[in-house]
Formats: sequence, structure tokens, C-alpha cells
Amino acid sequence: MLNITVILENGDTKTIQGTFGDNLLDVLRDNGIGVYAPCNGNGTCGKCIVQVKEGSLRKETMGELSKERQDKGFVLSCMSYLMEDITIAIPDSSLVGAAKIKTAERNKKNREKYEKLRSRFAALHGEVAHIHKLTIQLPEATLDDNVSDHDRLKREIRVQLGYTKVKMSLNLLKKLPFALRKNHFKITLFYTVTNERSIRIRHITWDENEKAYGVAFDIGTTSVAACLVELETGRILREISSANAQLKYGADVINRIIYATKGDGLKKLRDAIIYESINPLINELIGKAKIESERILIMSVSANTTMTHLFLGIYPDYLRREPYIPVITDTRQVTVFPWEMELMVNQNAVVIISPSVASYVGGDISAGVIAAEMRDSDTLTALIDLGTNGEIVFGNNEFLMTCACSAGPAFEGGEISCGMRASLGAIEGVEIEDETFQPILRVIDTHRPYGICGSGIIDLISELKRTNLINAKGKFNRDEPCERVLYDEYDIGRYVLAKEGEFDNDEEVAVTEIDIDNFIRAKGAIYSALHTLLESLGFAPDDLEKIKISGGIGSHIGIENAINIGIFPDIPLEKYEFIGNSSLSGSYLSLVNKKAAEYIDNSAYNMTYVELSVYSGYMDEFISACFIPHTDLNRFPNHGKR
Amino acid sequence: MLNITVILENGDTKTIQGTFGDNLLDVLRDNGIGVYAPCNGNGTCGKCIVQVKEGSLRKETMGELSKERQDKGFVLSCMSYLMEDITIAIPDSSLVGAAKIKTAERNKKNREKYEKLRSRFAALHGEVAHIHKLTIQLPEATLDDNVSDHDRLKREIRVQLGYTKVKMSLNLLKKLPFALRKNHFKITLFYTVTNERSIRIRHITWDENEKAYGVAFDIGTTSVAACLVELETGRILREISSANAQLKYGADVINRIIYATKGDGLKKLRDAIIYESINPLINELIGKAKIESERILIMSVSANTTMTHLFLGIYPDYLRREPYIPVITDTRQVTVFPWEMELMVNQNAVVIISPSVASYVGGDISAGVIAAEMRDSDTLTALIDLGTNGEIVFGNNEFLMTCACSAGPAFEGGEISCGMRASLGAIEGVEIEDETFQPILRVIDTHRPYGICGSGIIDLISELKRTNLINAKGKFNRDEPCERVLYDEYDIGRYVLAKEGEFDNDEEVAVTEIDIDNFIRAKGAIYSALHTLLESLGFAPDDLEKIKISGGIGSHIGIENAINIGIFPDIPLEKYEFIGNSSLSGSYLSLVNKKAAEYIDNSAYNMTYVELSVYSGYMDEFISACFIPHTDLNRFPNHGKR
Repeated sequence: MLNITVILENGDTKTIQGTFGDNLLDVLRDNGIGVYAPCNGNGTCGKCIVQVKEGSLRKETMGELSKERQDKGFVLSCMSYLMEDITIAIPDSSLVGAAKIKTAERNKKNREKYEKLRSRFAALHGEVAHIHKLTIQLPEATLDDNVSDHDRLKREIRVQLGYTKVKMSLNLLKKLPFALRKNHFKITLFYTVTNERSIRIRHITWDENEKAYGVAFDIGTTSVAACLVELETGRILREISSANAQLKYGADVINRIIYATKGDGLKKLRDAIIYESINPLINELIGKAKIESERILIMSVSANTTMTHLFLGIYPDYLRREPYIPVITDTRQVTVFPWEMELMVNQNAVVIISPSVASYVGGDISAGVIAAEMRDSDTLTALIDLGTNGEIVFGNNEFLMTCACSAGPAFEGGEISCGMRASLGAIEGVEIEDETFQPILRVIDTHRPYGICGSGIIDLISELKRTNLINAKGKFNRDEPCERVLYDEYDIGRYVLAKEGEFDNDEEVAVTEIDIDNFIRAKGAIYSALHTLLESLGFAPDDLEKIKISGGIGSHIGIENAINIGIFPDIPLEKYEFIGNSSLSGSYLSLVNKKAAEYIDNSAYNMTYVELSVYSGYMDEFISACFIPHTDLNRFPNHGKR
Repeated sequence: MLNITVILENGDTKTIQGTFGDNLLDVLRDNGIGVYAPCNGNGTCGKCIVQVKEGSLRKETMGELSKERQDKGFVLSCMSYLMEDITIAIPDSSLVGAAKIKTAERNKKNREKYEKLRSRFAALHGEVAHIHKLTIQLPEATLDDNVSDHDRLKREIRVQLGYTKVKMSLNLLKKLPFALRKNHFKITLFYTVTNERSIRIRHITWDENEKAYGVAFDIGTTSVAACLVELETGRILREISSANAQLKYGADVINRIIYATKGDGLKKLRDAIIYESINPLINELIGKAKIESERILIMSVSANTTMTHLFLGIYPDYLRREPYIPVITDTRQVTVFPWEMELMVNQNAVVIISPSVASYVGGDISAGVIAAEMRDSDTLTALIDLGTNGEIVFGNNEFLMTCACSAGPAFEGGEISCGMRASLGAIEGVEIEDETFQPILRVIDTHRPYGICGSGIIDLISELKRTNLINAKGKFNRDEPCERVLYDEYDIGRYVLAKEGEFDNDEEVAVTEIDIDNFIRAKGAIYSALHTLLESLGFAPDDLEKIKISGGIGSHIGIENAINIGIFPDIPLEKYEFIGNSSLSGSYLSLVNKKAAEYIDNSAYNMTYVELSVYSGYMDEFISACFIPHTDLNRFPNHGKR
């Protein structure tokens, strides 16, 4: 281990450790030192500079740094790699602001949350791995014992494990003679169990210390999230997310489907998700963990039905045409090979895809139900997944009802002029000062706001309403002038979150009346869908014992504000829980525990889908919900009181 | 239909039918008119000329034909295609000779033999198809019945057939929505049964008249044989064979293995068998039958262990190194996909490979045992497969013992100066006239001999011995001059079967003392192997109730001559039976009947392999057997008496 002594401007000194060859920026961030690097370590923004006081670093291109500063020992930390013990000084200007939200810490908390979910599931339902490991010493071949390599292996497996059939792909079989003879017929196998008599070998190696890994994916319409899992322990090593590369072909599923039906649109969409989202994310996950893609022996995917079709390259057009028919929901019945998908994992890896329920309730929801632990008790629970589409599940261990509403991408920052995903530079939380109407921002991983994500918009609209800057229709109160509220040439108002130049920002960040209007329709869709679903079964919001919110809108959604603007019903706050990305955590659970995968299959099979578009009354509900909070204020008795 | 009126030189007239676009040579041959085309219809030999008297043909290149002859209406029949009714005259010189053996007729007889074998097997053991066909009308999708396409299919299959799992590959699933909607949700499926609950779809079509086909292969070291099978009826539509394209890399398995271990030798060998033998043979089979490769839903392969390894691209070197270990014998346990093998069949086709017993007893023998019906009665039977390697199985319904001997390629015409496969132009039978020592030849499909195949060599050596032209060591009797026996400058004698110019031949066809010596060692290996195998169990040749001979040495092997020269033991002729290519017929049987495939697996598993090389006494037996017929004439009491 190498020691890095870090001196801060305030005089604090801290010593942290790294390994030869480690990237300096990574080491600093991993040790809680929030170095600012908006270009994300590509050496292009020139923000992550530190000054070397003692020792030296291996440096790559220092393009953004003047000769003068270089001579003073300044380096771009993202382009520097450890060689020996060093002492560095970090200027305040290289650190992210005080108001920042630390994604790394939050991700760590999420990981802990997911791993606890795994433990609770295992305690209730048991735990069975998909991938098993076996190191086995075979007797060496002789003239008296000259059975084939494969028979020799099969014989010993039968003795040790009792399986009589040992299947493998041709490409593995080709490696078998070499692997066997590399270490005197001692080999290590990774296998899956097909049934009580039969196993399938997934990987063969002569190195008994080799570990196997898995990648769990949530493919959302707007974002793709993934985590890397060490299979032996079930531990999540890293979590990551990025925009869905299909965004350039359409913001929502309907536009993607339309694109898929034109020319080679389907191929382009499939290629985008595989080559531009999934494989780069895997590459980043394994690159940082220094793992070869060959070591990934299982991959799980949870996605909405359209994303599942596009991931598989299946023509999706019948999803959007009445009577809205998916080609497949029960994804267990289709054999998916990594090679045909060109996935960057071991070519014999298992690929699990969470099954869908219907055209607009996908595998993300089947997986979400397990993450929300809805079937583990009789607590009447609603799961609300705020993605580009909003899906709602209502039920408990006795029944599950589900519906979908087309909320649009507003919750993920889409259709909002300054909207963005909940990633670096996104305003995730907003307060408005009572007297001055000045904003107080919480920004992800930096103090410079680039845009606003879903949870920030919820906060903002709630605060604008609370401070009477907007009315119930979401229009700015033209009677009350405010320095932060500006109007354009068409008299469209906007609230300025960050002025040009403020927070070192190049551009203004503002939310307009059009943005607010878009958001109101999105939230109206969610509220009315939940209300209609409950009503269809004779329930009212007050009957709900638990509401679990999931989605990628930003992890610290302000439930109170969300109720204030009428996304969620006005029931006691303690009934609410934000469970993070339930599609990803369900996907993770299905990856580490075969029982969980079966449970997801079972949930999908047992969910009853309610088609809102044919449900009378839904449209009226929706229109009433397109106000802040609602036309019927009796439903929101606490509005304005919190 | 178009009428072709054919006028022969002897004045006979015959009218046959063809279709617009048919190749004239094919039509003539299909109608039993033996037009001579040694280049096999490539337009290069210029032999298949006919004269058009009335009507016209579409002609491709007529390169070999003089302008003068073309003006007289002569055409190459192989390069001519029907357009309208025609009258043609065929000169005698374009017809194959009278002494010819008609492969087409013999193939037809073989096909009948194989189909009868299939009936007998089915009568004893039952018959279960691999590929099943189902035409099914699904209810059309509606808003009230909006399950996915796949669930809709699964639901109906469950009702009609009782299976609850309906698996398919991703590429088939992609076709499903289109196939369903092409004909109002009525589709036709071809599927295999995985177990009592589960099926796998192999092909989907909206055309209920589509038929499925299979191709059965025997991959020999020297020759590759195949037949095209209509799965619904089990009928063999066509049979075909060619040289194994790997021949250029070595004549026998040892040389191939050595080649495989050098550089990219393994890849070259694999590519040769797939791209230059198997796929062209499939192409020819389906081309003539006008079937698309997509329609081939099953392929079976029987081959010796080395050929199986090379076909699969598996490193074969441990096969030839003590202790002689195959990588795999139990080929059921490896999943082989047509796409990864680049086989010219439907990409979801089933590929069955007959399992091997040991390094030198392969799937050709496992398949051969079923073709020889050895396990269907208590008759003590020996199966002798005369290929490049000689393999022997001895036993009945109670036990099976097997051994292999390196006979070399002499039985298939290898290591013989004028040797060739049993194909067009091969001398397949020889008699020598008593007084004149002139040869009487039987040539395959022509009267012009190009070389001699295995059965011809057996006849020739037997006749040379009978007429005292050679002695027991296979040397020409220098005391008895003969116009047909010539000596070269090193005093190596040869018997001239065809002189230069004789039978329109360009070159002399002769068998030398070296050829005879090579052949004697090959036959010695077979005889001594059988004898040793029997002796190891306390049996003698007289105990044999049946000897079945198989192999590609020529279908009309003269058993009497084979005994005379000491290949086979001197037991009553009626105990012998030539069963043709047992590897191919076993392969065919495994293709049309799943029970037969299981039976082959079972045979391979239950065969006991005897390693001759470690068996004391085998070497002495071999040396004694390297005479005509043997050093111990008591073993051949009828020698010289028949």
C-alpha cells in the first residue's frame, strides 16, 4: 500500500492509502474527498487539480493545465496514477461545494439497503445460488483408465454431487482438455443446476482462486442502472447508471416503438441499448473493479415491456396497437445466449430477464414487487414506480392488482426545459426562502447546478405553491413581482434557480410555466391511476397501510412536498417509504438468489392487470388531478398546513 | 410438363418428361438414360454431348464443343436447360458402357435396405419422431384476451398437447408476431419434446403445407456420405457421397491429428469438413430436391472419434498419445448449435452426433451396431467395418466387445497407386481369364476405368493368387511370363488392368507389388484383430453365427474372394452379409427415430473396448496374417478349392 498525505486549504491533514497504479482522483473520491470533476475524469474540464508537494506521480496528458502551473507541481488528479508515497495539497476550488449531495455515499447506502433486502428475503424464502463452484481433483488418465476427458469429469461429479448428466457448450468442451492438463487434472468448475439429475457447466478453469461475478441491470426508458455483484458473497461491489442511449431515438416508449417500425430502426434501438448503454456500463463496472468480462457468469435484466422487447430485438409495434399485445411476457421460455446478444459477459453466462405482466407493466414491476416485499405480509401496500411510465401495484400476500399510466418522462427530468437525470450537477432538492424568494439548492456531487431532476422539480413546485408564487393551475402570480420570476417575450413565466454566472454557471437554470404544466399532467396521471385502481376494488387511499415509492427521480424525494402538490394521496407521512430503484434491487435479488427469480416469475404470473384506458371514470379523475393539488381539496385536508 | 423425345443410335426411341428450366443431363439420368459425364456436369469434360433434332434449349457455356459441332445442333447436355418440347439424338459415345455398374440403381437398393431396417427396428422397439408438426388455430387477440403472442401459443399447446412449457430461441421468437398475423393466428409449428412437460419450437411458419427434412451423415476418414430424408414419411429422397475434403491434410487419422496440432491446422481441418464436404453435400442434396436449407430441421452425424473431434473443432492430440484419451465420447452432453458450426441447415435444427466408445471406436461403430441389428437377437455376430480404420464388434443381445486396428486406407483405395473411392470410374470388380490372364472389369457408372476401389483390389488379388500370377507373399511369379504383368526399372512388378488407350483411357491403370503389399498388411490387421478379439473371450471363428461386413469399399464386395485372400475367416459363405454403409444407415435410423438414437447411445455405453496394442499375442497374429491367405493354411481349409 502507498500512503497519500492530503493537505486541505483549511489546514486539515489526512492520510489515505492507495495501490501502485491507482488513479489519484478515484482514490481521493473513494476516501471521501470530494474532488470536483464535471467531465467525470476524462482530463478535459481541468477542474480536478491538486498540487504535489512530495513524491511523484505517473501522469497522462495534462492538456488543460498551463506550463506555469505544471512547473509548480499542479496536476490533473484524474490523469495521475500512484507510483510511490506522496503528499498533495488540494485547493478549495477543486472540491465540490458544501451543498453537494454525495452520490458515492448514497450509493453505498443503497447497496446496504439492497443487501439487507437480500438477507430478509433469504430468511423468509431460503437462498439458492444460480452459479455453483466446485474444485475437483480427477484421477489422471492411464491406459487402464482411459475414459474420455468428459466422462472422467462426469464420473467424479456423479460421485461428489450425484448428478449424472454434465452438459456444456461446444466452446467450453474445446477448452476442457487444456484446462484438465494445466494442473494435473485438478480443475475448478462453475455450473448451474438444470434439474435433480443434470447440471450445465458455465466456466472451467485450472485456477481454483478464480471468482465469479454477476451484473444486475435495470433498463429504464430514460436511465439504465447496473450493479456488479460478487457471487460468492452476494456483495454489491459497484453501482452505476447512465442515460439510456436510445433517448436520441425518442423520449418515451411510444416514440421508440414508432422508431422501431421504420427502416432499420429496431436494429438501431437494439444496438444503442447493447453497445452504447449496457456494454459500456459493464466495462466501467469491471474496469474499476479490475475484473475480466469472462468472469461475469450471470446477468439479470429488469425492464419495462417495451425496453425488454427492444433489448431482445423483438418487433414491438403490437404493444402500442389495440389490443396492445406483447410478443412475450414469460421471458423464462426464451433461451437467450450472451453471444447472440453480443453482451460483454462470459459467453456461457446465464441471462435472466424479469417477466412482464402486460404491455405496460413490465419486468421492472415484477422485480419491483419483490423489492417492495409486497407478498411477504398482509399489509395492504401500494407500490408506485415513478419512471417514464408510471406503474402502480396494489395488494399484499393475497392479491396483486396493477395498472400503468403514461406519466411521460417528467419525473426523470424529461419534457422539462432544464430537466436532467438525477446525476452529477442535478438540483435534487429546493427550498425557497420566505421573504426573499431566493432558492436554496441541493445539487448532486457538486455545488454547480446544471439542471434539475425529478425530486428537485417536486420540491420546487411545492415551494412555489407554498410561497404563492404560482396558483393551483401552476401559473405564476403576475400580481406579485419577484426578482427570481422572469417572463419571456411570449409572457411565459419562469423561476430562475441559477442565474447566468451564479455558482460559476455558464447558463441560466430555470423552470418555466410550460415545464410546470408538463409536470402537473404527469403527476395527475399518477394520482388518478392510483385512485382509480383503488376505487375499482372498492378501496380508498385511507385504506392503504403502506405506500412504497420507487424510481430514478432522485433518491431523496420529498414525500411531504409530493403530497402537497398532489402526486400522492394525503395520508400520514409515516406510511410512506422511498425504496430507491426497485427494478434494480429486484434484478439484483433475482441474480443472487434463484428462489427470488422464481418468486418474480410467480409474481408476474399472479398479478391482475387493469387497463385504465377502458375504465370509465379514469379520464374525469385525471382532469381533476391536473391541479395543485387537486380540484377536490377535501382529498388534501393537510394542504398548505405543513 | 415438357416432352423430350430421345433417339438412340440403335434406333430405339423413348419419350420422357421434364419441367421448364430442368437440366437436360439430370432429366436424362433421372429417366435411366446413362449419359456419360465424368466431370459430373461441370461443363468441362465435353463428354455428355447430344444432338438437338427439333426444338431448342437454353444453353450455358459450350466451351468444349467445336463451332462445327455446335452448328450441327450438338450441345453439352449438362449445360442445357429445357424450354420447350424437344427431340434429341444421343450417340453411343455419350452413353456409359455396358459393363458399368449403375450407382443410381444400387443407391436405390441401398435406400430400400435402409428403409426396411427402419421398419424392422420400429417393429421391435417402437418409433418416436424427433421433430413433430402441429398446425394450430389460435383465438385472435382482443382487448379482453390480450395475453402475449407467446402465452397465446402456450395456452393452446397446453390444451391440445398438454405441455406447459413452450421454449424457443430468440431468433424464432422474433418471427413469431409476423407468423401469427400472416394468416389470422393460424400457424404451423415444428417442435421437439424435451420432457413430459416441455417442448422446444424449432420452426414456425404460417404455411401449413411446409414439410420438414433431415440430413443423415457418415463422416469417414476418406469419404463422406449423406442422405436427405423426408421426416413425415421417413423416406430417403437422395443419397450422395464425396471424398472427405480433409484428405489433402493427411490420408489417415494419425496424420490428420498431427496436422491439427500445428499452427491453425485444427481450424483448417474443421473448415474443410464443414465448408468443403458437408455443406456442399447438403447443397447438392437439397438443390436437386429443390428444398431450402431452412427446411432441414435435424441433422445426424456418425463418424469415427477423430472425425467427430475434427468436425466439432476439438483438439484431437490426446487421441493419439498414450493413454489415448478422447476429449468426449458421450456426445449427447454437448449442445451443438447449427449456427456455431456454420452448418447449412435451419439454425434451430437438432444436431445428433453418435457417441463414441473409445479413441479408435467411434460413433460410426455405435451407429453400425444398430444397423447390424446385433442387439436384437442372441445370434453371435461380428460386425467388421472396413474403413480407413478397421473396427470390429463382436457380441449379441447380451454383450458387445469391440476393438480397432489401423488397417490404413487401402480398403478405400488409399495407399494404392491407382486406388480410388468407390465412385464413378472405379473398377469395383475384377475377374482374370484363365488362359489369357486378361482382365474382365466391372466399372462404376461408366466403361472407362480411372482407378480401382477396395472391392476391386480384393477381387484382383484373389484372382492373381488363383491364377498363380502371385504367390502367398503377394509377389509376381517371375517364372511365368504374362503379357499383362510388367516390371519397372527396379524390378517391381505390376498387373495392368487397363493399358494406355484401352477403354479410351489416357493412362495405364495397374496394381503394383507395393500396392499388394500395402493391401496385405491392411487385411492382415483386420483378420488378426478379429481373431484376437474372439480368442480373448475364448471363442474361435467357427463359433460365429453371422459376420456382417460394412464400409465404403464398394458395395459388391466379393466375400468369397475376401476369404480366399484371408481378410475374413474361412467359415460358410451363408454366414456372411454385406450391409453397406452401416455408419450411414445407423445415422439415418437415429435421425428418423428417437428410440434408435437412444439405442445407439446405449450401445456405445455398453460396449467393452479391448485395446489390442496391449494384448499379448496380437503382434504374432498380425505377422502370420500378412500372407495370402495366412501362414497357417489349416485355418483356410477351402483355400484354392472354390
